[in-house]
Amino acid sequence: MTPTIKKRSEKAGLPPGTLIHLGERRSERTRITLLDYGEDHCEEGEVERIDECSRYQDRPSVTWINVSGLHQVDQIEQLNQCFGLHPLVLEDILNTDQRPKMEDFGTYIYIVLKMIYPADSGSEFITEQVSLILGPRYLISFQESEGDVFEPIRERVRNGKGRLRKLGADYLAHALLDTIVDHYFIILERLGEQEEELEEVLTKNPTPRTLQAIHQLKREMIFLRKSVWPLREVISGLERAESPLIQTSTAVYLRDIYDHTIQVIDNLETFRDMLSGMIDIYLSSISNRMNEIMKVLTIIATIFIPLTFIVGLYGMNFKYMPELESPWGYPAVLVLMLGVSVFMLLYFKRKKWL
Amino acid sequence: MTPTIKKRSEKAGLPPGTLIHLGERRSERTRITLLDYGEDHCEEGEVERIDECSRYQDRPSVTWINVSGLHQVDQIEQLNQCFGLHPLVLEDILNTDQRPKMEDFGTYIYIVLKMIYPADSGSEFITEQVSLILGPRYLISFQESEGDVFEPIRERVRNGKGRLRKLGADYLAHALLDTIVDHYFIILERLGEQEEELEEVLTKNPTPRTLQAIHQLKREMIFLRKSVWPLREVISGLERAESPLIQTSTAVYLRDIYDHTIQVIDNLETFRDMLSGMIDIYLSSISNRMNEIMKVLTIIATIFIPLTFIVGLYGMNFKYMPELESPWGYPAVLVLMLGVSVFMLLYFKRKKWL
Amino acid sequence: MTPTIKKRSEKAGLPPGTLIHLGERRSERTRITLLDYGEDHCEEGEVERIDECSRYQDRPSVTWINVSGLHQVDQIEQLNQCFGLHPLVLEDILNTDQRPKMEDFGTYIYIVLKMIYPADSGSEFITEQVSLILGPRYLISFQESEGDVFEPIRERVRNGKGRLRKLGADYLAHALLDTIVDHYFIILERLGEQEEELEEVLTKNPTPRTLQAIHQLKREMIFLRKSVWPLREVISGLERAESPLIQTSTAVYLRDIYDHTIQVIDNLETFRDMLSGMIDIYLSSISNRMNEIMKVLTIIATIFIPLTFIVGLYGMNFKYMPELESPWGYPAVLVLMLGVSVFMLLYFKRKKWL
Amino acid sequence: MTPTIKKRSEKAGLPPGTLIHLGERRSERTRITLLDYGEDHCEEGEVERIDECSRYQDRPSVTWINVSGLHQVDQIEQLNQCFGLHPLVLEDILNTDQRPKMEDFGTYIYIVLKMIYPADSGSEFITEQVSLILGPRYLISFQESEGDVFEPIRERVRNGKGRLRKLGADYLAHALLDTIVDHYFIILERLGEQEEELEEVLTKNPTPRTLQAIHQLKREMIFLRKSVWPLREVISGLERAESPLIQTSTAVYLRDIYDHTIQVIDNLETFRDMLSGMIDIYLSSISNRMNEIMKVLTIIATIFIPLTFIVGLYGMNFKYMPELESPWGYPAVLVLMLGVSVFMLLYFKRKKWL
Amino acid sequence: MTPTIKKRSEKAGLPPGTLIHLGERRSERTRITLLDYGEDHCEEGEVERIDECSRYQDRPSVTWINVSGLHQVDQIEQLNQCFGLHPLVLEDILNTDQRPKMEDFGTYIYIVLKMIYPADSGSEFITEQVSLILGPRYLISFQESEGDVFEPIRERVRNGKGRLRKLGADYLAHALLDTIVDHYFIILERLGEQEEELEEVLTKNPTPRTLQAIHQLKREMIFLRKSVWPLREVISGLERAESPLIQTSTAVYLRDIYDHTIQVIDNLETFRDMLSGMIDIYLSSISNRMNEIMKVLTIIATIFIPLTFIVGLYGMNFKYMPELESPWGYPAVLVLMLGVSVFMLLYFKRKKWL
Repeated sequence: MTPTIKKRSEKAGLPPGTLIHLGERRSERTRITLLDYGEDHCEEGEVERIDECSRYQDRPSVTWINVSGLHQVDQIEQLNQCFGLHPLVLEDILNTDQRPKMEDFGTYIYIVLKMIYPADSGSEFITEQVSLILGPRYLISFQESEGDVFEPIRERVRNGKGRLRKLGADYLAHALLDTIVDHYFIILERLGEQEEELEEVLTKNPTPRTLQAIHQLKREMIFLRKSVWPLREVISGLERAESPLIQTSTAVYLRDIYDHTIQVIDNLETFRDMLSGMIDIYLSSISNRMNEIMKVLTIIATIFIPLTFIVGLYGMNFKYMPELESPWGYPAVLVLMLGVSVFMLLYFKRKKWL
Repeated sequence: MTPTIKKRSEKAGLPPGTLIHLGERRSERTRITLLDYGEDHCEEGEVERIDECSRYQDRPSVTWINVSGLHQVDQIEQLNQCFGLHPLVLEDILNTDQRPKMEDFGTYIYIVLKMIYPADSGSEFITEQVSLILGPRYLISFQESEGDVFEPIRERVRNGKGRLRKLGADYLAHALLDTIVDHYFIILERLGEQEEELEEVLTKNPTPRTLQAIHQLKREMIFLRKSVWPLREVISGLERAESPLIQTSTAVYLRDIYDHTIQVIDNLETFRDMLSGMIDIYLSSISNRMNEIMKVLTIIATIFIPLTFIVGLYGMNFKYMPELESPWGYPAVLVLMLGVSVFMLLYFKRKKWL
Repeated sequence: MTPTIKKRSEKAGLPPGTLIHLGERRSERTRITLLDYGEDHCEEGEVERIDECSRYQDRPSVTWINVSGLHQVDQIEQLNQCFGLHPLVLEDILNTDQRPKMEDFGTYIYIVLKMIYPADSGSEFITEQVSLILGPRYLISFQESEGDVFEPIRERVRNGKGRLRKLGADYLAHALLDTIVDHYFIILERLGEQEEELEEVLTKNPTPRTLQAIHQLKREMIFLRKSVWPLREVISGLERAESPLIQTSTAVYLRDIYDHTIQVIDNLETFRDMLSGMIDIYLSSISNRMNEIMKVLTIIATIFIPLTFIVGLYGMNFKYMPELESPWGYPAVLVLMLGVSVFMLLYFKRKKWL
Repeated sequence: MTPTIKKRSEKAGLPPGTLIHLGERRSERTRITLLDYGEDHCEEGEVERIDECSRYQDRPSVTWINVSGLHQVDQIEQLNQCFGLHPLVLEDILNTDQRPKMEDFGTYIYIVLKMIYPADSGSEFITEQVSLILGPRYLISFQESEGDVFEPIRERVRNGKGRLRKLGADYLAHALLDTIVDHYFIILERLGEQEEELEEVLTKNPTPRTLQAIHQLKREMIFLRKSVWPLREVISGLERAESPLIQTSTAVYLRDIYDHTIQVIDNLETFRDMLSGMIDIYLSSISNRMNEIMKVLTIIATIFIPLTFIVGLYGMNFKYMPELESPWGYPAVLVLMLGVSVFMLLYFKRKKWL
Repeated sequence: MTPTIKKRSEKAGLPPGTLIHLGERRSERTRITLLDYGEDHCEEGEVERIDECSRYQDRPSVTWINVSGLHQVDQIEQLNQCFGLHPLVLEDILNTDQRPKMEDFGTYIYIVLKMIYPADSGSEFITEQVSLILGPRYLISFQESEGDVFEPIRERVRNGKGRLRKLGADYLAHALLDTIVDHYFIILERLGEQEEELEEVLTKNPTPRTLQAIHQLKREMIFLRKSVWPLREVISGLERAESPLIQTSTAVYLRDIYDHTIQVIDNLETFRDMLSGMIDIYLSSISNRMNEIMKVLTIIATIFIPLTFIVGLYGMNFKYMPELESPWGYPAVLVLMLGVSVFMLLYFKRKKWL
């Protein structure tokens, strides 16, 4: 969290709309791909500069411009002229610690949300901010790094099967949102697996590391929750938006994504309840195990304490101790000590301390 | 939770409306039973393929189609053509980790909820997703497995007594919902019994297993709550729905179910409060019992420590120790040690440590 | 809680409106008393069967029918014919684990709530479900057992003083509600007394039983809360009901009851806060006392450990130990040991462990 | 809390509007002072009976009647005739455990709230119920005991400076409310001081008494909160009341009081958070200190245990123990034991247990 | 918190609108700077008395009057005459413990909020109350001390670049609010750094001081939260205000600030969750470490207890103890004791206590 807050705090005092890329530079260069399709055709390409896209604007076909890599600020700046975007929107696109939100600017809708997907290796998750500009017949999407998350959608466009080619830019936006929300389930699955592993560790051999792992999981949960909660409002906002940019037939599909979002939130809440239950179990099992140790050790100590007293008794150097002279003294004491031990063991057993 | 999330995460990237059965395959085959009834007649049968049902659609009588077993996706797909269901509805029917919800599509209402009932053997609960399609004069219900939960309703239809035969498909839908909510009370009863047993164990002999059982119960509570909370909205949504599919006379009965749902939620909340109270009692009773043990053992140790010191004292090998020479030395030391023990016991008693 | 849930779970599958008495059978027989009064007259009597009451229905005077004992289902059933009550209302009257609620059926208002009063002996509370049917000029009240809780109101009617005789059935309903809410204050008083006693025990001599008593009190609190919370809605519902059955002048009195309900809830919340504070104090005082014990005992042990080492040292059998030969050896060791003890005691004192 | 609840529970069954003074009798007699003022004149006096005030009612000047002492019920009763107050209002005035509320009766507004001020001596707070009846050109205020809290306002009226003499009875009511809310800040200041003292004790030398003091403070907080929370609604209710009794110019001043109330609530919430933090710190510091003790004592014990074993070893009476014969035996053992002690101390030091 | 509450409690009883400066006197004197600008000109200056500003009021240009230092009450008082401010507004400006709020007085809008910035040295934060009076073509800002927080805005005005010179006083107000909110991110960054440091300490070597530091951080969080939460309402109030003082084009910029505020709140909530997780980890790690110590020490004690018993056994002075006479007695006992130790160590190892 700190890196973006840091940059943001450095930006304090600058006028709003100042375009500075906040966030890590994740990709080599800004790559702009273009996909223009209608029911009958599909044109794909890569462009050097964003202003090359402007000629697609007036066509009746749907144009999808995907920008990956946000550090080349001048490229982003041209969007202002080509598509008439508000400077604050450009600022928000570049500022990668946005809270998911949806803003209707009349001629276009600006959507920003978090895409989370597992890293290729390791158990880490990668979080990336995705911004969408939904215009009348175009959609511009911004990613922080090049990824193949949207590749299946591109494939569906190329194949020309399904609804995608027949419907407008709003349905394309829905497809992107759907993909992003679907990825949350992948994360949920991973978290669920981690949680189950932890639970097994918890019943077998809990260590202080288990607690740290639980807290680590809790943090990831909190983080995911922070990304998903506002998404609910974003999508219900889109669904209810009385904008000509979103057709009624698309609203049903948005409600479907909305349901998925609620499900993700529900599962996160359940996870959270389970995690706090796990912390309880951890704490009580740790103290239980410690108590077990202390109990057994104390029992050993307690059995030997009277015995040690007895042997000390007959180690005294008094002149007149008749027992010492007796030939039966030693065996009698041995028997006495055996008796004491057995009595104490039985007593502990009856009290259920053993 | 994981199995369906897993499948769902595998589905990421596929277009919405792709029909894949998410969930365990619980029954051998998809079985479709049909019940067509009016005030005067009642026809019952089993059909092989769903499209055979379409001819019942135009009749003035009420048709109840029950589909049990969801893995034969092609059967479900035909509903699209026969009854004009939206592809997303079909997808939701097959996806068995839906959150309970109600959607009004104008010509039909789609309701999805969870049916929970105790397994025939053991203390396990079976959770099954039930989907209902309420049309003008038909009701299609989808179950994951064949069960006899709805059998009493079928019996009431056959008998022809009561309101069921006289009223429409909406009243039939109400009857199914009522049965499902009634089953929640059975689950509540079981949970209540388990809770009482645990409470008895808790006052008698709490073990770490008791804590795990409490947490297990808490989990079941959380799970049940997740199924019942959204149900409240579903039913109040139905009650308030200004749909011609639901008659005013049925609304009173829906309000009755709504009251039952609230009661289930109320009882669950009370359970939850009691369970967290039980965790408190468990923790304090465990520490109490441990402290009891430690106390008694420490008292034994403390009494013998001064005695062991005394016998050690007269075990010293100094040449000039007048006590050792005295014939009264030994008995005097014995009396001294008795005195010390009695004094300490009395002291502990006065301090109420014994 | 379980008995009614149990019966209710047995009822699963039966059609709604099936009349079965859920709850304990508390009274010998169903007793129906009748009080018919106007500004000038007051007629009192007992009837055998409910249908005898129907002739009072058309009179201009106010008729109060009180039914105590709910197990004679056939009696209750006749209300359907006499007063045109909905079958679901009859079912709710018989089902004694209703959540407090208010339903406006147009020609009558159905109110159900919990009456709680202390038992004649012991510290137990008796909870009884009271149902009211408020019609244009009649009021039917249902109690589970015969009690004299409503006797003062009957007395006020007989005396003919006050507003009661001059006003309608709605004011009579208000009087019953007022009496029921007033009884909550009696319960609050009892709980308050118990809480004060517990607090005194807590500062003097807390035992594990104290914790159980606190939790018992908490449970009663939760139970009372469950009865009172929905009452708030019930009464504000009555107050705001735009029903001709409730006159504007009565609304002021309902607002008065509403204020009392809020006060009961407020007091319950305060109790709850205090009880959880008491659990905290209990836990810390128990651990405090245990620590006290352990501290003193450990101090005793620690003082004797070095002394036991010293006497052991001079119990060694080495041939050449010059101290043993010295005539001052023994007294010197005694002095040394005294010194060590005094030093340790002073050290503990300075560290404030004593 | 109990005394009023007790009396209230005794009142159960009496008809509403029965005038009984609930609460302690705090003053000798009911004292009625009268202040009649306009822009040009100011008349002050004391009256014996409330009905003497009625002649001021028709005057164009503002009349402030202050009644202190509520146990002379007959005096209060006359208000009914003189000012046409509703019986329930009179009942509420006498019943001194009212929740703060505001009721608009059309011709007058009834306001009841709690005045809290520090006692003249000690750290106790006195809570008194203040009722206000705001009429067209009169204000009647009821206090439980004679106090000089409102004296500064009286003084401002006498001086004739400021807005008070120029404006109506609603501004006078605002002045009284303002004074009462200002007194909450005095209480907040005292609580804040107590909290700071406790915090200092907590860092220096926490005892079980500290915990009880924290809980005592928490209770006072809860009590204050109970008085202040509903006040917020009362004042926003007055501000928004579309009553001709409250002029628009006064609404700005009421909003000012509203802001103060919010500030009191804010501060109370902050206090609450701090107090629960203090309980955490208390518990951990107590256990920390105990652990410190146990640690040092156990270390002492552990060092001497091996030493005691060694001296016991050479206290054995075997015939053939070569060490015992050697002249270097004794010094060697002494050196060995020194070595063991030093080793253990170093080990403990390295492990940071010392 | 206490100083202002103290002064405020001293003010109890004074009429509202009494101008007294509550809060520390932070600057030497009240300094009034003036900045008058339009699209083409920019005039800057410092004035002695506020009434000198009134001539700028009628000009078409935007006038920004900045007052730093609030203790010269007479200066503030003149605002009443020059700009027609309500006395309560003046009182609120002087009273520096205001809760952030926004009030629309028709001809001007009064905004009060908290500016928090890090002190030049140390890790302390300085909190200052900033009041803004937004009039038709003027903005008056009040600061408690002279600071250069607003200097960058002044610079932007002077440079004449950007939107600032072209737009009205509402955009200037937005610029000030934006700067203030931007400074919250600086504070967040600092708190985040402190939190990370604490976390590192927590995993390495937690001490009671760590807990106090966590609680200190929690307090700062609570304090910041108290300043930021109401800000949300303030800014959404401004955004939605249907005031001619705020132009539609500015509303977009206000929504931008609103988003930032939400982000600050979000981050604070996440911090809070993390801090309570840290308290859990602290408590369990402390008890863990203590348990570690106790375990090792007890193990040492337990191994030596049986050994000490054995050596005591052969220290007894019985005449007839055959073992003592045997030449193999001593070595045999040594071997026995070695065996016992090894056995116990192995047992502890298998039980995983070592």
